[in-house]
Amino acid sequence: MRFSSEQLQDIEEQRGITAPTRRATVPSLEEILYEALPVLDHGFIRVIDYMGDDSAIVQAARVSYGKGTKKKTEDRGLIRYLMRHLHTSPFEMCEIKLHVKLPIFIARQWIRHRTANVNEYSARYSILDKEFYIPRHEHLATQSTVNNQGRGKILDFDQAERVMEILRQDSERAYDNYAYLLNEDEEGQPVNQDQDGLARELARMNLPVNFYTQWYWKVDLHNFMHFLNLRADAHAQYEIRAYADILLDVLKRWVPHTYEAFMDYRKHSARLSQGGLEAVKRMVKGEKVAMEDTGLSKREWDELMGLLDVKVG
Amino acid sequence: MRFSSEQLQDIEEQRGITAPTRRATVPSLEEILYEALPVLDHGFIRVIDYMGDDSAIVQAARVSYGKGTKKKTEDRGLIRYLMRHLHTSPFEMCEIKLHVKLPIFIARQWIRHRTANVNEYSARYSILDKEFYIPRHEHLATQSTVNNQGRGKILDFDQAERVMEILRQDSERAYDNYAYLLNEDEEGQPVNQDQDGLARELARMNLPVNFYTQWYWKVDLHNFMHFLNLRADAHAQYEIRAYADILLDVLKRWVPHTYEAFMDYRKHSARLSQGGLEAVKRMVKGEKVAMEDTGLSKREWDELMGLLDVKVG
Amino acid sequence: MRFSSEQLQDIEEQRGITAPTRRATVPSLEEILYEALPVLDHGFIRVIDYMGDDSAIVQAARVSYGKGTKKKTEDRGLIRYLMRHLHTSPFEMCEIKLHVKLPIFIARQWIRHRTANVNEYSARYSILDKEFYIPRHEHLATQSTVNNQGRGKILDFDQAERVMEILRQDSERAYDNYAYLLNEDEEGQPVNQDQDGLARELARMNLPVNFYTQWYWKVDLHNFMHFLNLRADAHAQYEIRAYADILLDVLKRWVPHTYEAFMDYRKHSARLSQGGLEAVKRMVKGEKVAMEDTGLSKREWDELMGLLDVKVG
Amino acid sequence: MRFSSEQLQDIEEQRGITAPTRRATVPSLEEILYEALPVLDHGFIRVIDYMGDDSAIVQAARVSYGKGTKKKTEDRGLIRYLMRHLHTSPFEMCEIKLHVKLPIFIARQWIRHRTANVNEYSARYSILDKEFYIPRHEHLATQSTVNNQGRGKILDFDQAERVMEILRQDSERAYDNYAYLLNEDEEGQPVNQDQDGLARELARMNLPVNFYTQWYWKVDLHNFMHFLNLRADAHAQYEIRAYADILLDVLKRWVPHTYEAFMDYRKHSARLSQGGLEAVKRMVKGEKVAMEDTGLSKREWDELMGLLDVKVG
Repeated sequence: MRFSSEQLQDIEEQRGITAPTRRATVPSLEEILYEALPVLDHGFIRVIDYMGDDSAIVQAARVSYGKGTKKKTEDRGLIRYLMRHLHTSPFEMCEIKLHVKLPIFIARQWIRHRTANVNEYSARYSILDKEFYIPRHEHLATQSTVNNQGRGKILDFDQAERVMEILRQDSERAYDNYAYLLNEDEEGQPVNQDQDGLARELARMNLPVNFYTQWYWKVDLHNFMHFLNLRADAHAQYEIRAYADILLDVLKRWVPHTYEAFMDYRKHSARLSQGGLEAVKRMVKGEKVAMEDTGLSKREWDELMGLLDVKVG
Repeated sequence: MRFSSEQLQDIEEQRGITAPTRRATVPSLEEILYEALPVLDHGFIRVIDYMGDDSAIVQAARVSYGKGTKKKTEDRGLIRYLMRHLHTSPFEMCEIKLHVKLPIFIARQWIRHRTANVNEYSARYSILDKEFYIPRHEHLATQSTVNNQGRGKILDFDQAERVMEILRQDSERAYDNYAYLLNEDEEGQPVNQDQDGLARELARMNLPVNFYTQWYWKVDLHNFMHFLNLRADAHAQYEIRAYADILLDVLKRWVPHTYEAFMDYRKHSARLSQGGLEAVKRMVKGEKVAMEDTGLSKREWDELMGLLDVKVG
Repeated sequence: MRFSSEQLQDIEEQRGITAPTRRATVPSLEEILYEALPVLDHGFIRVIDYMGDDSAIVQAARVSYGKGTKKKTEDRGLIRYLMRHLHTSPFEMCEIKLHVKLPIFIARQWIRHRTANVNEYSARYSILDKEFYIPRHEHLATQSTVNNQGRGKILDFDQAERVMEILRQDSERAYDNYAYLLNEDEEGQPVNQDQDGLARELARMNLPVNFYTQWYWKVDLHNFMHFLNLRADAHAQYEIRAYADILLDVLKRWVPHTYEAFMDYRKHSARLSQGGLEAVKRMVKGEKVAMEDTGLSKREWDELMGLLDVKVG
Repeated sequence: MRFSSEQLQDIEEQRGITAPTRRATVPSLEEILYEALPVLDHGFIRVIDYMGDDSAIVQAARVSYGKGTKKKTEDRGLIRYLMRHLHTSPFEMCEIKLHVKLPIFIARQWIRHRTANVNEYSARYSILDKEFYIPRHEHLATQSTVNNQGRGKILDFDQAERVMEILRQDSERAYDNYAYLLNEDEEGQPVNQDQDGLARELARMNLPVNFYTQWYWKVDLHNFMHFLNLRADAHAQYEIRAYADILLDVLKRWVPHTYEAFMDYRKHSARLSQGGLEAVKRMVKGEKVAMEDTGLSKREWDELMGLLDVKVG
């Protein structure tokens, strides 16, 4: 993550301005407002703005004239009730806006969450920076043999070095050719007078998907949690999880009661299928239950045993 | 619009609390925050929260590290450019949250705007107040004879009085029977000991659609303007227009540059069809153009003449 | 449910027309196409159109050039996998379109599902029929004392009769006054020559929310199941559940493998919170677990015991 | 566009299956169902399924029991009325599903249209084909000097050759390294026994955005037209316009009345700002109007003159 001095100054300037407001305000989130939280080698997340707090959820749920409930403990109880019973609309009454810098292949996963607003840096208008993602040794792994869309064992040191070298060389060359095709210096003048520059919207097609892009992204709290539920997860690709994990901390700063309820009833909860529930009922009654009696497939049975921490013989 | 003293106190309390924030802040909107702006006989709009301002739009459009542009005039110019060229996503980066009290039949039109969040007062949980909408004399009119979905001439005084009397009596009776069916006093105890109260979700079915409901409604700026474009319009039913007109003022307080651009390029703009445009081109060149030469239908031709302020002989 | 002979003829006519298509086709759903499936006293559901079938889900999931997989059993397996792992986008590739007649207060709950398309019969343009919902004896109940938004015990016969009488009288009177205010006969001519008719958009405000409205409603399969999950549920109001239950049958006719997976992994599944899962793990290991040891609230504990079919002493 | 013999057989097989249906059916669209319509050098569009036709729009607009209106001319008239007056919901009652192969940088523009369903070929699960986009001579141009996001003059032959050579070499090398990193042969066995293959989700990051991806994309007719309005437009990048132009033909086959209304009232229509409208009114009255009198900016004035085909001296 490299910032120009102008960018750093812009950030500091915004952090320096304070105004009084009657709106719901969250000091622990204000603390990090506009700051660049680093992710991967060149990425970041910046919280730009937010609307609402825990008590705004309660206020909306009650369609009330004043703030939440009279007591903080009632707010917490109601939030837990709403989360448990899937009353999602009060959570939609809060909103957060982020500035994110991320590799293109991650942006392509991220944008699949459609219930959000996005404004991306345009490579039709502007020239992309020379910033690309190279994974660290410990994140270079083989294809998983048990999971079609995951990683297996970590590569050994020499192989990892070789992979990084290939990625780095191809990225460097791609960017150099991108710059050559554009044929523009910092003032937008041709570098080489004998050559026409290629339009930006065309030249950018030479860049690989590990190059960084950036966008403003805005989402309501309900859909933010849905994003975190899917992306701060062992099945998500490491590189998007790196962003989601930081956003979990942002969630905690912003709406601590909601965060707690989210962890209890969503993130750390478990869903039992009809067959799985039947099996569990019998186990709880003390029965010995074998896979064959349950109608569950081998994969479902293994997942259930894993969930229940039962060592399978 | 009648408020209990508790409600008034809740509102004043929220207005009294001020906290410092680093977020974009709009003093002219803060001024009216939480206040009930009256609409119709018992309705209101309260602005509960907002996110962003004019310069936040510019900031998002540029995916920038600092605030909008350096000069206010550049912000205005860019906002006008974005509005003119239908670059809608930067406008989605602002958000507003309202508390609205409105008759059910208006709520049913309003909710057709799906890209918004809503949390409505539930008549399954709670008991509705005895508040219903009775139009004023000047809003009681006949069915339009030129427009299938509009109003014609104003009723004369006696007929209007008669209409109001019928509406009032039916509403009074409906509510009295609703209360009788519920059989609950203010403490939730039976009024009549010999009778079981009917469930709230059932008893409410007796109430007509002129009764007031209320909700929290949150929408982004782009969709807010889309709502205003359709509802602050001569083709909209008067009762929803009454709300939309007040919201136009809210828009002006909140994002004055955007408001101005919205009025110029959307609200007061006109769309010419292919045939209409061809006709106008010829008129501008000084040709005499008759309806028959244009391929336009009678209705389209009349609309075009109306648009151009041309008296049709 | 009363149909005019013209309506019946329209329905039969559409059922009579058959054309060849290359599209995915579902004979068991074709069988009931356009037919009015009765719901409540005057409501109905008609399936008007559909897109896709079970194998279209597989085809989309594989982004394939041909139909689903080679073997039917593989289709089933993949659909179950997708459902279990929350891969929702392939299910969005199917679509269904319904014509529904339903009481206004149910329409107001239904439309809260925003990810759908709706076109409602307009009481601004047209005159509503004299059709209102009166619950049957067995559906008239008191307010639940354990659940804020539900029903308790069934009213006794005499009280139920009295309730029905009140609802019926108020509905009759409301409609009579609506008709009086409109002052239009079947040809749109004034009934009473001395009186101006009131605009339709105004007169309709006298009608209670138990009157029937109708709409075309279109939704993708993923959101259709989300609707069914919430509405074909014991916590939903009986009157909307009556519609959802019939739609469950429609789902089964349309996409039988998806229906089966939906029932196993969604409808009949159970979610355990973090605390609930911890308790279950210990029970499965044979421990005696008391509420006090779990950190669960009384309500959560009772829900868990209910789920596990454990009698609480 | 290269297809394997298996893919061609899959397509032909689907085209060969016909079943009777009661649904609205469009023979001219059935004709091309499943066929691959070529776009750019390796891309295609295949229409996979559709729901509804022109008369289904009318049927939904009327919430009717039978098919559209009795006469075809009435259908056309109502569709034009709906289009002119922005009654969008009846158009949402039709749906189309496509299989599209397109370069990644175009997919990234396309997916900005969020009100659609998409299922993309996953480079986490599967290996991408060696297919990348190389523009033809006539599409290689300089950056526009008048428009920040467009193309200027076409490159001369030698420069174009040079650009194509660079793009081709970088794409070839990127793919070769991608394949080397994966280290998998067609059976999924290692090519080189001494080397571990890199996980697919990682190796793909080396590929440039001119590589082709593919997806199933489903959208309702209203949003389809919105897409076409923005993308079959001179301001859109040529490469996405190439897709949109073909989809205009698909629209014409599918819903010819809607297509005609769309062209008249949207595609070939013009919007006049408040200031532009005032200027036109005066011109139509025969006044000489100069830019200075209008309050329009230079850019707006030029756009207006262009619209009216007025040569500016």
